[in-house]
Amino acid sequence: MTATASGAPRLLNSVLRRQRLARMDKGQLDTLAQEIREVLLETVCATGGHLGSNLGVVELTIALHRVFDPGRDRIVFDVGHQCYPHKLLTGRLSRFGRLRKAGGLSGYPARGESETDVVENSHASTALSYADGLTTAFALRGQADRRVVVVIGDGALTGGMSWEAINTIGAAARPMVVVLNDNGRSYAPTVGSISTHLRALRGHAAGANVFTNLGFAYFGPVDGHDVTEIEHAFRQASTMDRPALVHVVTVKGKGYPPAEADDVDHMHTVGALNRVTGTPATGQGRTWTSVFAHEIRTLGAERPDLVCLSAAMITPTGLADFARAFPGRAFDVGIAEQHAVTRAAGLAMGGLHPVVAIYSTFLNRAVDQLLMDVALHRLPVTFVLDRAGVTGPDGPSHHGVWDLSVLGLVPGLRVAAPRDPAGLRALLREAVSVTEGPTAVRFPKTTASHDIPARQRIGPVDVLRSASADDVLLVAVGPLAAPCLEAAERLGGRGVGVTVVDPRWVLPVPAELTDLAARYRLVVTVEDNLVTGGVGTHLRQALDVHPAPPPVRGIAIPPRFLAHGSRDGLLREHGLDADGIAGAVLRALSSGEVAP
Amino acid sequence: MTATASGAPRLLNSVLRRQRLARMDKGQLDTLAQEIREVLLETVCATGGHLGSNLGVVELTIALHRVFDPGRDRIVFDVGHQCYPHKLLTGRLSRFGRLRKAGGLSGYPARGESETDVVENSHASTALSYADGLTTAFALRGQADRRVVVVIGDGALTGGMSWEAINTIGAAARPMVVVLNDNGRSYAPTVGSISTHLRALRGHAAGANVFTNLGFAYFGPVDGHDVTEIEHAFRQASTMDRPALVHVVTVKGKGYPPAEADDVDHMHTVGALNRVTGTPATGQGRTWTSVFAHEIRTLGAERPDLVCLSAAMITPTGLADFARAFPGRAFDVGIAEQHAVTRAAGLAMGGLHPVVAIYSTFLNRAVDQLLMDVALHRLPVTFVLDRAGVTGPDGPSHHGVWDLSVLGLVPGLRVAAPRDPAGLRALLREAVSVTEGPTAVRFPKTTASHDIPARQRIGPVDVLRSASADDVLLVAVGPLAAPCLEAAERLGGRGVGVTVVDPRWVLPVPAELTDLAARYRLVVTVEDNLVTGGVGTHLRQALDVHPAPPPVRGIAIPPRFLAHGSRDGLLREHGLDADGIAGAVLRALSSGEVAP
Repeated sequence: MTATASGAPRLLNSVLRRQRLARMDKGQLDTLAQEIREVLLETVCATGGHLGSNLGVVELTIALHRVFDPGRDRIVFDVGHQCYPHKLLTGRLSRFGRLRKAGGLSGYPARGESETDVVENSHASTALSYADGLTTAFALRGQADRRVVVVIGDGALTGGMSWEAINTIGAAARPMVVVLNDNGRSYAPTVGSISTHLRALRGHAAGANVFTNLGFAYFGPVDGHDVTEIEHAFRQASTMDRPALVHVVTVKGKGYPPAEADDVDHMHTVGALNRVTGTPATGQGRTWTSVFAHEIRTLGAERPDLVCLSAAMITPTGLADFARAFPGRAFDVGIAEQHAVTRAAGLAMGGLHPVVAIYSTFLNRAVDQLLMDVALHRLPVTFVLDRAGVTGPDGPSHHGVWDLSVLGLVPGLRVAAPRDPAGLRALLREAVSVTEGPTAVRFPKTTASHDIPARQRIGPVDVLRSASADDVLLVAVGPLAAPCLEAAERLGGRGVGVTVVDPRWVLPVPAELTDLAARYRLVVTVEDNLVTGGVGTHLRQALDVHPAPPPVRGIAIPPRFLAHGSRDGLLREHGLDADGIAGAVLRALSSGEVAP
Repeated sequence: MTATASGAPRLLNSVLRRQRLARMDKGQLDTLAQEIREVLLETVCATGGHLGSNLGVVELTIALHRVFDPGRDRIVFDVGHQCYPHKLLTGRLSRFGRLRKAGGLSGYPARGESETDVVENSHASTALSYADGLTTAFALRGQADRRVVVVIGDGALTGGMSWEAINTIGAAARPMVVVLNDNGRSYAPTVGSISTHLRALRGHAAGANVFTNLGFAYFGPVDGHDVTEIEHAFRQASTMDRPALVHVVTVKGKGYPPAEADDVDHMHTVGALNRVTGTPATGQGRTWTSVFAHEIRTLGAERPDLVCLSAAMITPTGLADFARAFPGRAFDVGIAEQHAVTRAAGLAMGGLHPVVAIYSTFLNRAVDQLLMDVALHRLPVTFVLDRAGVTGPDGPSHHGVWDLSVLGLVPGLRVAAPRDPAGLRALLREAVSVTEGPTAVRFPKTTASHDIPARQRIGPVDVLRSASADDVLLVAVGPLAAPCLEAAERLGGRGVGVTVVDPRWVLPVPAELTDLAARYRLVVTVEDNLVTGGVGTHLRQALDVHPAPPPVRGIAIPPRFLAHGSRDGLLREHGLDADGIAGAVLRALSSGEVAP
């Protein structure tokens, strides 16, 4: 690292014109790579974001930009968590300091930022399918000179979609360059026999391999930190009249010793960091994930039939302690949510109780498996949904605002939403005790709040606050109990009697909740899920059988994609803070619909 | 075929004890195979069902039952459309005549019928994941002597889930026998480079192949109609201490000349047949699929930017004519719904308008791709959902009762539900004219009704019948317009004024519908979709902003899995016929909730 923290990235500033980049010599390219790494470290240590994945692709990205034209050709980054060098090479240096902040640059490709950004989905293993569509469209439209390049990690090859695409791309035999960025990692080391096969190719690449067997030309392995070598392979691959795969071997976290040395995930994604030590800049507090991590470890000791599955995210989902304690009972299946869910079904058929720990947004990858493989067979599988609800800086594809709506469609599935750490521990215990049919427990990506005591329990429903008059019932889903209580206090000060309940088992709506709700003048549900299909929708439907049911108002997420920003800011924006909740109650009371 | 149609299947009757099967000699096994084929033909020509797939696995299934113990070992049939011989060998001969009838045998494995049935999901490419879970569970529970056998078609290898499972199974290295039933077909010939690779193996199997590269022992290719040869390979595979794949080459439709000769799909699945000629026993009438098939062919001639995709079902989804007329613009991507949807996203990014023709139930395989790849990028992709709503004899995994609820969660997606052939043609035209954001058009598996004229159009909403008094509004979704009109007539005769509307574009609920609905005393929505998340739910929510909105009653499918039966019978059972609709209106009117 020769560029200093204070030095201006001179060469990086000069490459806004591609011609300049094309003319650079080896020494200049090395300096440019150093400048990019310097900017990455400087920024990401301050803002948080994807670190290891971006440090690993600096040379690879420079080579891409020298061989291909990102404006006319299409470079599709799988996942997109490795797009920072691409952003820096396409004129976004000056805005890079506001990475992942509300109004600032997205942490993923974003078509609104640049015409060189193509795919902004951030979910793995899709790039080959996009590329298949793009090459086909260009061929049909007489634009076959536009080249399509895919940058995909070895981890993404554990996702089945990649093989669905390989099957058709290999047969169609149109030109396409697939850059396999093989760093041997997903978050953790990539699992499975595909990874074993890639390791074998790194050692001895002669002869048939899975790619050549399936219709691809194979180039490599190539040293992923030597721009010249990568460029040479890219140019060779570009001359083929059929799909070509370039096997580029990179080091995740390259050039930052704390990342290269990190054996969890090479600092795949980080919060703000002390750059010198590589340790978190601020204390994190107790996260929901850590509460789950501790409790599942405890349950594992009590219940030998408990097994845990993760789709390539053992550590981020809180399973690392469990996996260390019970290595034969924790399974990383790769970035393969469908397989995770159906494998869990098989484990349950075999007499075990599987816990699938997964981010809420990624469960949408396995809706059919949840329905047909788990629920249709009434199997006891517990889904633990981390990052449920509004998530924050990772943007539209990472918010977990669909889960209640989707889970609510699955016959026989029960969903719990704990409001506090004590609730998570208790509900997880209840969930893994269910012996027929699936359960889910959802919680957000935040520091967990302090425990909130209940005054009374009616069936599964906790009454957190009882008003003297039966005016308004606030139904709080999960950690939104805290702002609901705050809103209730304020409203109490204005003479509005507000009772606050936490149903705990939120779907199907408990009969006790429906019976209780029928007694109020106004019911307001509060959830960070889409406004349709969540607790509000189900409660309103359940109230239909009551004569003269009260109006139900739902405070929830509107039916659009949410941008990135802070969780608190986004909740506020959508009326899911104390102010918003109190305001919604007052508006409803004054609307003339509520019986006096 | 030496057994006669009238002859009793003597040997088949004798094999209820497995010992009897184990002792049979080659000649007896041949006779047994003939008896099974005879029963298959006799029954399926009368009841309809899966024909080609079952005729192809007769010898394979006999071998399975001789080598493995279906009661203690686990035989997992992928999809399950090839389980009829298994049913006949496990004591279900006497009930076989009522295959796929309400109350009769399921057309798929069903745990309620036999403990030898394991998986009843009927969606492809899941069996390896189940098996991975089962072998792991048996190993952990000290039951490693229970063998796990998977029967999977070459078509199912085009589904990515299979490769997700192969990745972990190949690395875990536990014993498992995978029977690759390679008939070269999905419905149509299996597409892609995996199929090409399998064909190469059939010719020359020496050396590394994709299975050996990924950790499996490989046995084969084996003649799939020679019980002795198959058995030998199964016994060899069973001795391995790691996963073993037995490549069995079969002929779909084997033993029934009209099926063997059928070049569409070897009579994969049929309605009732004239056995001698192999032609449909009764005229089919004009199906919804055929109306779509004709219109998309017409549109294809007008719109060179129109391309069509199918997940291995070009003919069943009505794309065959289009594909013949425009071969470069129709894509069979294999049994790969995820890839189909994201490839469509890529095609749209490349400037084309893709139409994804898919059965409603299979769209649940690609929810995340619909959200993140199509909708987040606001791409103009049209989804044509055949077999939407209550489907019929194929049972719980084939009813398309989730689509409206799932599609209703996708920001920017518009859903159309035509009530008649004219509506399908018009709405399809409107859908493919949309230039930003996805659309979907849904219709059921039935004969299409006659056209039903509108009296008036308000925005997109067709008014089909206007009552003199503004009493009751019936909102009919798709072809349920017909029973709604019939119910309205009957209610009119009893002095209840009923207006019937068809919103056509059903989601998001048109503002014109909400405004209209607000003027009635009672609104009843009628849809063959889950009661939550469909048109009823969305309309009720939209009415919230109106002062004093009328009560909304939803007639729809309850939140449970529906058994198999006839479509009409199931609709009647759930109140979705004229009787049920009229009754629901009368009950609501007398409930005291409706303003006088």
